Amino acid sequence: MEVVGKDAVSDDCAIIPMGEGYMVASTDMVHESTDFPEGMTDWEKGWMSVAVTLSDIAAMGAMPGGILLSVGLDKPSRLRSILEGAKACCDTYDARFAGGDLDFHRELTIVSSGWGFCDAPVRRSGAAVGDDIGIVGIPGRAQAALDGHQEFRDFLFAPRPRVMEGRALALAGVTSMMDVSDGLLMSLSDMLEVNQCGYEISSSRIPLLDGISPESSRKYSLNGGGDFGLLFTYPSGMIPLTIPDLYIIGNVIEEKVVKIDGQVASINGYQHHWD
Amino acid sequence: MEVVGKDAVSDDCAIIPMGEGYMVASTDMVHESTDFPEGMTDWEKGWMSVAVTLSDIAAMGAMPGGILLSVGLDKPSRLRSILEGAKACCDTYDARFAGGDLDFHRELTIVSSGWGFCDAPVRRSGAAVGDDIGIVGIPGRAQAALDGHQEFRDFLFAPRPRVMEGRALALAGVTSMMDVSDGLLMSLSDMLEVNQCGYEISSSRIPLLDGISPESSRKYSLNGGGDFGLLFTYPSGMIPLTIPDLYIIGNVIEEKVVKIDGQVASINGYQHHWD
Repeated sequence: MEVVGKDAVSDDCAIIPMGEGYMVASTDMVHESTDFPEGMTDWEKGWMSVAVTLSDIAAMGAMPGGILLSVGLDKPSRLRSILEGAKACCDTYDARFAGGDLDFHRELTIVSSGWGFCDAPVRRSGAAVGDDIGIVGIPGRAQAALDGHQEFRDFLFAPRPRVMEGRALALAGVTSMMDVSDGLLMSLSDMLEVNQCGYEISSSRIPLLDGISPESSRKYSLNGGGDFGLLFTYPSGMIPLTIPDLYIIGNVIEEKVVKIDGQVASINGYQHHWD
Repeated sequence: MEVVGKDAVSDDCAIIPMGEGYMVASTDMVHESTDFPEGMTDWEKGWMSVAVTLSDIAAMGAMPGGILLSVGLDKPSRLRSILEGAKACCDTYDARFAGGDLDFHRELTIVSSGWGFCDAPVRRSGAAVGDDIGIVGIPGRAQAALDGHQEFRDFLFAPRPRVMEGRALALAGVTSMMDVSDGLLMSLSDMLEVNQCGYEISSSRIPLLDGISPESSRKYSLNGGGDFGLLFTYPSGMIPLTIPDLYIIGNVIEEKVVKIDGQVASINGYQHHWD
């Protein structure tokens, strides 16, 4: 179905030309039964709702502008903590918390919509054969926390959108970028869809998670979702490696597949598609 | 609670200075059990979701820019009709349908978020004593339809946001404006909250609804919600009355109350507040 148009849905944000630059905009729905892990506080739910949208804006290499929140509340008393968490996340990343809409709903449902600005957006497409593949953030930590590894709790419960890192990478000349919130392999598969090239990564170049067996760690890092890291490509040798938490994990290849350690990867998971 | 800030929530849209003008932005959540009347098609639900946001943008006197949709679907098969209705509403009012987020939800939940642009936004505040009070659209028709008056069905099921009318009124110099989707009296009460003046209207100046008793018609027009008309104030005599469906219904007064036919009105209804 082409109601929205393929071009409108193949990036983390919509891209709107504006003056000499661009506005980017994104919306994300989260709700109690499927998106909030057990034990998450209402403050953290507010934070996370905003963080998912700021992560989309960061993945375009844009600076956040503002956030609007639509909240469907099951209990009015929850509002204050949710708004305070949302506001804290906005303040941390210099986004304006611009208000929103309030409603009652059987199930707590929060939709954050946000916009940001950049000179030129970094898209999911744009990778060239020979580019290196990099990530910011060790993927898999949110999933490990979900499985009970409490030491990684913050990555799951109060994820940090990589706003400054996304901006730095855009300025450094990355050729393509997206966030890895659906998992590293799934994200590579998404990139595969909109580029005329393939991706080969070495699992040994992804740092292992402390205190977890190498086998489990690798599984978390390849398939685990919920992390707010960035995945990007760039002309080999051009990236300033001073960005903290940045790892080079592979290369862009000619063959249109995703390979891990030389083997074509099978992509697990399910994604909703608009087109 | 002042998490968001009073100024951020006292208009139909957030107002963001941009270049020599302004961007306005709004988000609205609607869901099956409370917002969609029985018998509404999925196409109409998509249309209405977008129309509520475009109505907010129209009420600022702004031209629509784009719309993002977050859809929480109970059944995947509903998506196409919802998106087609949403797209049709965007196309009708020259707004770009810029994509969005898709999710599964026990109850169909749609959040539309939109932005628009203007030289100077028209706010809810700004009325001056002596201004006339005007409306675009006869209020009460959506409520009458909800009560079974099928001849008004379109006002309830496929409401028209007053985009061109809002723009024309802004250019004509209205001093304040908002949409009347919560009902005329409720809207006057909202204006009362943010202005240092009062509002007096004559019920006889609101056209009666065809085929409905004068008493019921008056009730619908004062208290009925769901219409997408505009309520505005302007310096007496300054409005070009060539805008179709425009009625002058009263005056801005010094006493900080809402009066109908000389009597202080009691405001019914309930509103969710952010502050």
